[in-house]
Amino acid sequence: MITAGIVGISGYSGGKTLELLLRHDQVRVTYVSANNSKGTVADLWPHLRGKTDLVCDTFDADKAAELCDVVFLAVPHTVAMALAPRLLAKSKRVIDLSADYRIDDESLYAKWYGKAHIDEGNLKKAVYGLPELCREKIKDASLIANPGCYPTAALLALAPLVATQTERIQSIIIDAKSGVSGAGKKPSPSVMFTQVNENFMAYKVMTHQHTPEIDQYLTRLAGQKIGVTFVPHLLPVHQGILETIYVSLKPDGNFSTDQINDIYIKFYKKEPFVRVLPPGTQPELKNVRETNYCDIGLVLDQKKNMLVITSAIDNLIKGASGQAVQNMNIMFNFPETKGLIS
Amino acid sequence: MITAGIVGISGYSGGKTLELLLRHDQVRVTYVSANNSKGTVADLWPHLRGKTDLVCDTFDADKAAELCDVVFLAVPHTVAMALAPRLLAKSKRVIDLSADYRIDDESLYAKWYGKAHIDEGNLKKAVYGLPELCREKIKDASLIANPGCYPTAALLALAPLVATQTERIQSIIIDAKSGVSGAGKKPSPSVMFTQVNENFMAYKVMTHQHTPEIDQYLTRLAGQKIGVTFVPHLLPVHQGILETIYVSLKPDGNFSTDQINDIYIKFYKKEPFVRVLPPGTQPELKNVRETNYCDIGLVLDQKKNMLVITSAIDNLIKGASGQAVQNMNIMFNFPETKGLIS
Amino acid sequence: MITAGIVGISGYSGGKTLELLLRHDQVRVTYVSANNSKGTVADLWPHLRGKTDLVCDTFDADKAAELCDVVFLAVPHTVAMALAPRLLAKSKRVIDLSADYRIDDESLYAKWYGKAHIDEGNLKKAVYGLPELCREKIKDASLIANPGCYPTAALLALAPLVATQTERIQSIIIDAKSGVSGAGKKPSPSVMFTQVNENFMAYKVMTHQHTPEIDQYLTRLAGQKIGVTFVPHLLPVHQGILETIYVSLKPDGNFSTDQINDIYIKFYKKEPFVRVLPPGTQPELKNVRETNYCDIGLVLDQKKNMLVITSAIDNLIKGASGQAVQNMNIMFNFPETKGLIS
Amino acid sequence: MITAGIVGISGYSGGKTLELLLRHDQVRVTYVSANNSKGTVADLWPHLRGKTDLVCDTFDADKAAELCDVVFLAVPHTVAMALAPRLLAKSKRVIDLSADYRIDDESLYAKWYGKAHIDEGNLKKAVYGLPELCREKIKDASLIANPGCYPTAALLALAPLVATQTERIQSIIIDAKSGVSGAGKKPSPSVMFTQVNENFMAYKVMTHQHTPEIDQYLTRLAGQKIGVTFVPHLLPVHQGILETIYVSLKPDGNFSTDQINDIYIKFYKKEPFVRVLPPGTQPELKNVRETNYCDIGLVLDQKKNMLVITSAIDNLIKGASGQAVQNMNIMFNFPETKGLIS
Repeated sequence: MITAGIVGISGYSGGKTLELLLRHDQVRVTYVSANNSKGTVADLWPHLRGKTDLVCDTFDADKAAELCDVVFLAVPHTVAMALAPRLLAKSKRVIDLSADYRIDDESLYAKWYGKAHIDEGNLKKAVYGLPELCREKIKDASLIANPGCYPTAALLALAPLVATQTERIQSIIIDAKSGVSGAGKKPSPSVMFTQVNENFMAYKVMTHQHTPEIDQYLTRLAGQKIGVTFVPHLLPVHQGILETIYVSLKPDGNFSTDQINDIYIKFYKKEPFVRVLPPGTQPELKNVRETNYCDIGLVLDQKKNMLVITSAIDNLIKGASGQAVQNMNIMFNFPETKGLIS
Repeated sequence: MITAGIVGISGYSGGKTLELLLRHDQVRVTYVSANNSKGTVADLWPHLRGKTDLVCDTFDADKAAELCDVVFLAVPHTVAMALAPRLLAKSKRVIDLSADYRIDDESLYAKWYGKAHIDEGNLKKAVYGLPELCREKIKDASLIANPGCYPTAALLALAPLVATQTERIQSIIIDAKSGVSGAGKKPSPSVMFTQVNENFMAYKVMTHQHTPEIDQYLTRLAGQKIGVTFVPHLLPVHQGILETIYVSLKPDGNFSTDQINDIYIKFYKKEPFVRVLPPGTQPELKNVRETNYCDIGLVLDQKKNMLVITSAIDNLIKGASGQAVQNMNIMFNFPETKGLIS
Repeated sequence: MITAGIVGISGYSGGKTLELLLRHDQVRVTYVSANNSKGTVADLWPHLRGKTDLVCDTFDADKAAELCDVVFLAVPHTVAMALAPRLLAKSKRVIDLSADYRIDDESLYAKWYGKAHIDEGNLKKAVYGLPELCREKIKDASLIANPGCYPTAALLALAPLVATQTERIQSIIIDAKSGVSGAGKKPSPSVMFTQVNENFMAYKVMTHQHTPEIDQYLTRLAGQKIGVTFVPHLLPVHQGILETIYVSLKPDGNFSTDQINDIYIKFYKKEPFVRVLPPGTQPELKNVRETNYCDIGLVLDQKKNMLVITSAIDNLIKGASGQAVQNMNIMFNFPETKGLIS
Repeated sequence: MITAGIVGISGYSGGKTLELLLRHDQVRVTYVSANNSKGTVADLWPHLRGKTDLVCDTFDADKAAELCDVVFLAVPHTVAMALAPRLLAKSKRVIDLSADYRIDDESLYAKWYGKAHIDEGNLKKAVYGLPELCREKIKDASLIANPGCYPTAALLALAPLVATQTERIQSIIIDAKSGVSGAGKKPSPSVMFTQVNENFMAYKVMTHQHTPEIDQYLTRLAGQKIGVTFVPHLLPVHQGILETIYVSLKPDGNFSTDQINDIYIKFYKKEPFVRVLPPGTQPELKNVRETNYCDIGLVLDQKKNMLVITSAIDNLIKGASGQAVQNMNIMFNFPETKGLIS
């Protein structure tokens, strides 16, 4: 049994992390904080009424460090890098759900997130928390950079191909669609019901801040520079990301659907949370909702040398809180699915 | 051909009034204003791009009076009563979509809307703009109090019964359900997509400000005091109100479904915008969406002396802007359906 | 550890029962059947892919009896009463999610369900599976009549009042709103997306088959005849029921909100799945979604002697499968919340 | 004033065509038919109650020809080609909303629609009814092949580029998303509310039957063979198509956003129904809902030589019935926007 704290429980990823940890029988949540909300958890999250007596506080690093073995940071980008060092300094393990420790190159971080990085020391030590690709390093990490929601779906969809068939890839286009919870809990015109409902649109076309995160890890996997075209869209659903990924392959003529399928099946055969779907089956948001799964579908048009990979995750679970818990399970040597497949 | 102005086009009722008037071949919109938004109509309402070159201004009573024969006030409650007198003083006709001129009794207004009335003179002269009940007075009115959305659906559903069978009515309960546009366009936690979607709840239980408006007009119709129990709910749809109205009848034993149906058919036989549905048919939001219709369904349980009336309107059309245009048509002697059934 | 079977897993309540039992660490699912669907569970319920290898069969009473300690019947009304006797004859315990054993009076059953009852012997022995009201009898029951979704929300909302304040109640009107999954999984025009989405309507006005079930148990609680007015509506959401219940009280003048609240708090104080909300708080579908909770809100208008009770459940969980699992927990002496609050 | 008939009014495109024609002051609808539905229009389309007394019949070519100047065929693919010749033989003008006369090459038709073409004679004479590209031919056409919904959005989005910059285009990928009404009105598991709501998925990945229609007209425009990669998805909305189109450009270095914008503005400057949005603005489904507009957004990434074009239409209006009425307006020399922008 370990103790855990969550900083920023008023947001979706903080609230969902709390919900997951309350179900986890090896974890006791001992500390929760939210800057703008005092009061009980039930005030913030009425669906949790009766499940916990925790009272929410403004952030206090000393208190968090005293009460917790591990602290989840579910605060906005550019805030986390101010809090993490204070917890790490007290030898606490930190899982950061923000983007602050995901981008190796500080100038790239500054460019995409609009602020200079202020914790370069820990940035170097942070481990990217995508278990399917980085499990060994996660085990001993003191600071986890929990992946972005779009990058999680993209990297799991592309990893087997990029890692094993680099030379065959000509270009990658990612057409991504996300539910509204990905935009956070703060009221604004763009996330009102009357704006989103019965609507659909692209946004940040080729300028979304998750693009360099995807590029960086694909490049690492490939051992050579890879850059994607990335266009996100806003879906009128609460939760879920579906990405339709167009991989233009070099016309070498002898690559079959079966071969590609085998590559994926083999790559993920021991993974509890990746489901490579049978040929002819497409991922659907509803099949991954409230789960930590990533479902992957594969269709190859041999004549056009075009491979279409579709991947679906729940942006709040595998794309944020579920993956954070999965990382915690690995860090503390719990069964990896604990609290996630019950 | 007349000229019209709309004050407050950034809100839903202002925007929809503009949209309707742009389709009306006897009206030219010559003035639009919005306090917080400058710029073109297309900036505020991108779906109207290409349909008008109107530029939005902050409110200027002189300019509005100079440019318009009739002005629609689509501003918040308590604001309209400060603007209307300035337009009326210049002999302009005013259609107020707010609640400011609907409640005869100023103390009741103050109690439910939280502010003392500041234009009692015009309040006495205002005509309630429910054409099916007040058509004759509307013709010559200079100031129209355009009815609330909930009261429109309630009064049209109850009028035939209350006007002709007063002595048979024992009690009236109105269970109302409204789409989210009824809550206006201002961002707040309660109207975010992630809050409303896949959700449903009651609000302002027996404390909604439309209650005294319903009571006042039923009382007027009945010629004796009538009070209703009113509970509104928030539906996860953009537009539409459905009210399920429970009328407990006195047990006098000889009142049949056919009789009730006949009363309604007769009462509304010349009305272009009220459809009394055939027995066995229920109103549905989708059948009145983007129309000025009110659909009414009637079911009587003779053994229980319980009559269930269901009525459906589009809260933005018959519940606000469409009814405002209908009132304008009557005031200016246009065919009543002009611009509304095209 | 016990073994369980589910008959009818292709429907929503069967599928959800399976999903819940797969998470229950004291139960092994050993048998599943579905008449029209052969193949794996993942073929029917792709979201369960990877969680079970169970293969679906057509119903075989001998096999079910041989493999299971308890069998859940999630088949249509009028089908269950043909299957239950065959399992009971082999001393298996049966939890029937259909309506077949809920109505004591066979002539009433025949009237509302359109078919004569064919298992009167077991009908007499069946125990109504609403744990909050019938827990002691459930412990030793061999046949559970799992309550209907609407009756569950209605009875939990009304029980404290009806059981303790019978003489004060004048009339009860239930305005119920349900998500679409309540209509089952069979395609038909009335449950298509294009029909339901952005729509809302009443149906079976004062003629819904759950009415006699509600009447019967309220009458039992009150010790005197009680009959309700019941009108259901179809909400454009997947899951959830919210009922707005109007209780007209006798005008005896001295009944306060606090008193009513105390009655409810006291009545349910040991119940793990009923949450009486703090005054001023309303139940919302989203707070009970995918949970076994029933949330209850209370508002009294003392001047009108009108009590408005709102109750919310998930129709698939507390209204069907969750309650069935709760009943199983009681029958087999497991902690009552096992598999339901994890 | 002309007379018009609609064959197949029980489907979405037939029903919407009727709704549009009832608003058109130069057209009288004199004939409607539907094979499986007798009775009044209000039985089929309750929202049209009170707007027409037309009674629906089974198809009778003689009667249709006798009563109508123009007949709209809103019947399934492979059915239209059996009906059209009978009307054309009587010198009636026909607007076919099915796919039967869109594909020049009969073998291609047979391959994608699963049936040999049976009316090759008229196939040769049919005019593709995309007014923005084929207006002159439409004027005198006796048979219009009304474009498919996906091709309409794709061709309008691509025409200016393909027609003027053919040599710069390297590849075209169309990621399309459609509302559920595109799937028709027939109940099936894939279009149930409980399947579609809160869900999203790709379907017919690179195998959708609209692909050859897109290829054929792009090829015609370019004067050289063009083939696209096309992947459709099902959106949880009633109406609307948004396509995100990735055009990989040849790296010739001197093509700016302004240039592309100018090309589009110029190409469509006289078109009443195409809106090229200002730079930085994205099309949204809600802005074209219930309109005949096609909104187009353009974003160029010069470093990657990637142009992302987004286009939005209402699949039922510009993607079917609205375009059919636009074609009728052209054929009968009415103002082109008649009945469509009112």
